[in-house]
Amino acid sequence: MSRTIALLTDFGTRDHYVGVMKGVMRGICPEATFIDITHEVPAQAVRDGALILRQSYRFFPTGTVFLAVVDPGVGSSRRALLLHTGQYTFVAPDNGVLSYVFSEFEAIQAFALENPRLRLQDVSSTFHGRDIFAPAAAYAANGNLELEEFGPAIDATTLVRLPVPRLELDATTVRGEVTRIDHFGNAITSIGPLRWLDDAHLQLASGKDYPGLNASRARITAGRHQIQGVKHAYHEVSTHEILAQIDSAGFLEIAVNQGSAAQELSLHVGDEILITHFASSG
Amino acid sequence: MSRTIALLTDFGTRDHYVGVMKGVMRGICPEATFIDITHEVPAQAVRDGALILRQSYRFFPTGTVFLAVVDPGVGSSRRALLLHTGQYTFVAPDNGVLSYVFSEFEAIQAFALENPRLRLQDVSSTFHGRDIFAPAAAYAANGNLELEEFGPAIDATTLVRLPVPRLELDATTVRGEVTRIDHFGNAITSIGPLRWLDDAHLQLASGKDYPGLNASRARITAGRHQIQGVKHAYHEVSTHEILAQIDSAGFLEIAVNQGSAAQELSLHVGDEILITHFASSG
Amino acid sequence: MSRTIALLTDFGTRDHYVGVMKGVMRGICPEATFIDITHEVPAQAVRDGALILRQSYRFFPTGTVFLAVVDPGVGSSRRALLLHTGQYTFVAPDNGVLSYVFSEFEAIQAFALENPRLRLQDVSSTFHGRDIFAPAAAYAANGNLELEEFGPAIDATTLVRLPVPRLELDATTVRGEVTRIDHFGNAITSIGPLRWLDDAHLQLASGKDYPGLNASRARITAGRHQIQGVKHAYHEVSTHEILAQIDSAGFLEIAVNQGSAAQELSLHVGDEILITHFASSG
Repeated sequence: MSRTIALLTDFGTRDHYVGVMKGVMRGICPEATFIDITHEVPAQAVRDGALILRQSYRFFPTGTVFLAVVDPGVGSSRRALLLHTGQYTFVAPDNGVLSYVFSEFEAIQAFALENPRLRLQDVSSTFHGRDIFAPAAAYAANGNLELEEFGPAIDATTLVRLPVPRLELDATTVRGEVTRIDHFGNAITSIGPLRWLDDAHLQLASGKDYPGLNASRARITAGRHQIQGVKHAYHEVSTHEILAQIDSAGFLEIAVNQGSAAQELSLHVGDEILITHFASSG
Repeated sequence: MSRTIALLTDFGTRDHYVGVMKGVMRGICPEATFIDITHEVPAQAVRDGALILRQSYRFFPTGTVFLAVVDPGVGSSRRALLLHTGQYTFVAPDNGVLSYVFSEFEAIQAFALENPRLRLQDVSSTFHGRDIFAPAAAYAANGNLELEEFGPAIDATTLVRLPVPRLELDATTVRGEVTRIDHFGNAITSIGPLRWLDDAHLQLASGKDYPGLNASRARITAGRHQIQGVKHAYHEVSTHEILAQIDSAGFLEIAVNQGSAAQELSLHVGDEILITHFASSG
Repeated sequence: MSRTIALLTDFGTRDHYVGVMKGVMRGICPEATFIDITHEVPAQAVRDGALILRQSYRFFPTGTVFLAVVDPGVGSSRRALLLHTGQYTFVAPDNGVLSYVFSEFEAIQAFALENPRLRLQDVSSTFHGRDIFAPAAAYAANGNLELEEFGPAIDATTLVRLPVPRLELDATTVRGEVTRIDHFGNAITSIGPLRWLDDAHLQLASGKDYPGLNASRARITAGRHQIQGVKHAYHEVSTHEILAQIDSAGFLEIAVNQGSAAQELSLHVGDEILITHFASSG
């Protein structure tokens, strides 16, 4: 049976770093097959990696091993982790890159990757992806070790957690931020996950008692632009027109039909996004 | 037995979109293995995707499933397609991205992807690649469903067809256009497919009664540059010299030996390419 | 059993060239699985390809077939090679791209890829990667042919060899050069492979009688910058500070903690790197 290892790094694809990690893993787990989530996380941008991993992992089959290496602290004393959720296994440095994922699970088991027999023989100080994390992911994919063999158990409350993206709610305003600009120039925001109720309403999935937003009357402020209403799909506006809609992970996104919202509205990660002027209709 | 799914999209590789589609497919077809044709089709450039797919598909083994998602109409009422040619299966939006391919087959079967059981449970309005097309490709790779289970059959004459790239022939002139600039800066043209007869002659494979071009006497006009003769290979000219030759798919290409023709001749997609001053020798 | 084919090219990922090679290989060897080392070797930069391959190959499992296509001489009379080292098989043009690899093996067998039955039926003059090299790699991965069936044996002393990167040693100075700038902006040098002895000493693995360098007292000159001492890891200097350390392949590297040394020191491939002012302590 082939075993899926999904990779997320900031290594880019110009060098041999990703290929070498896969070579190491094939040597340990000959049945491993690899799916690249992305290797273009901005260099050392742990939070970007964490956000992308959160949007991705649930679409992979049970048993997938995730190898997430965005590791500005390589060679320092930051811990190397293996987390097991029952459904998935994650291998990564303990710097927060997993924190948006593990907060979605009720129970996780965490271990420090300290077993020298589950590393390459010579561990460099600059490439733990190859020397520590890839071997651990491959041994995990083999599936024939007790988790305790990877190293000592870690109290999950001590894992590094990143601050969650900004999301503030009051009776008249939802205040969030741009968390990511994607390849198409769509600006993904922290406002969500949202869940459609009907054409008029939308509601934050997390805020059980939050009054529904009126989807068509809401006013979204993104930079100096104001957008009227939340749409269902690109084609509800004309080509090159700006719209707000729900992205494929359930978050509010600012987009331009067949264009780049980031360019046309000069949006950047961290920019404030507001929803105002909506009627409470809960 | 592993089953090949070949992917072509405009999703880029910076986001998790391609990885997530593969995760979905592995969940449905655990034996699926993936070959990326490219994910760098320019955003929403259906015609570029169609051209690349036409150059590629014939080199894949029988039974390959092609997943082609360049989809500016996502969320609108454009149809989602499964085409079967006997040899290959193609899954794509009905926007023309398959049209240069299916025109090469005598008989195709076409179906609309409307079976809700062969989609993800929640279908977003922005990412049908993940929610509709990837599941369909994976079920097709499994190979245990009747094609009719994907949805209602479609009359192939109603499929969206793109205009074919410009190619006009008369007794003294062949008039075409640049269709694509590749990674090396080679300018691929619409003139072809060509077939060598001998050193002096070349002939359009499609034009049975077309007079042979005199390969060495032909004058090719590309932008403001004139090139004398069609060469067999880069090394027939000096380093950094301009040449016209036949590309690996049989089309006339303007190239620079160890350089970029697109840069040095300022060539762009759509620019006119002429062949003149050739002796009829048919 | 799946068979690993590792790919290194200068084809980029924008075109279909890499995908088509994989399609051809899957047709010949259905169990082939592919690991991309990189496809972003600078166009026609044989030496860059050779350097990356040397850093990579040893991390792949025994039996791996390497397909290395950086081929400015495509269509000329340069030979097409299959090399076998006992542990690995390499398929590439005879232009030096393999020369840093094969110099690390005591005995290699070399063959010219001249058997027309092990090529595609129509061989183009511009894409031997698809027509000659990919088929050969796939037949080699199948593992059921005698090596002699690929073509006539070649005297290994006639293989094209690239000049080795500059590395000059005398009693007071080590003189090398920048060989590669990686994705993070680290400047990798020709000085190495190095091997730590203890905190104070380091020694060239190749220079058996070379006096140990004093790791902390060495002065490294990179462009107009001087760096004091060789560090063990990024975190030994502050964020954005310059350091010299040993890279993951054992070579001296100039880096900036969480920054780009290439940008901040304006370093380019070929720039001279000196180590001076070190005490002999052998």
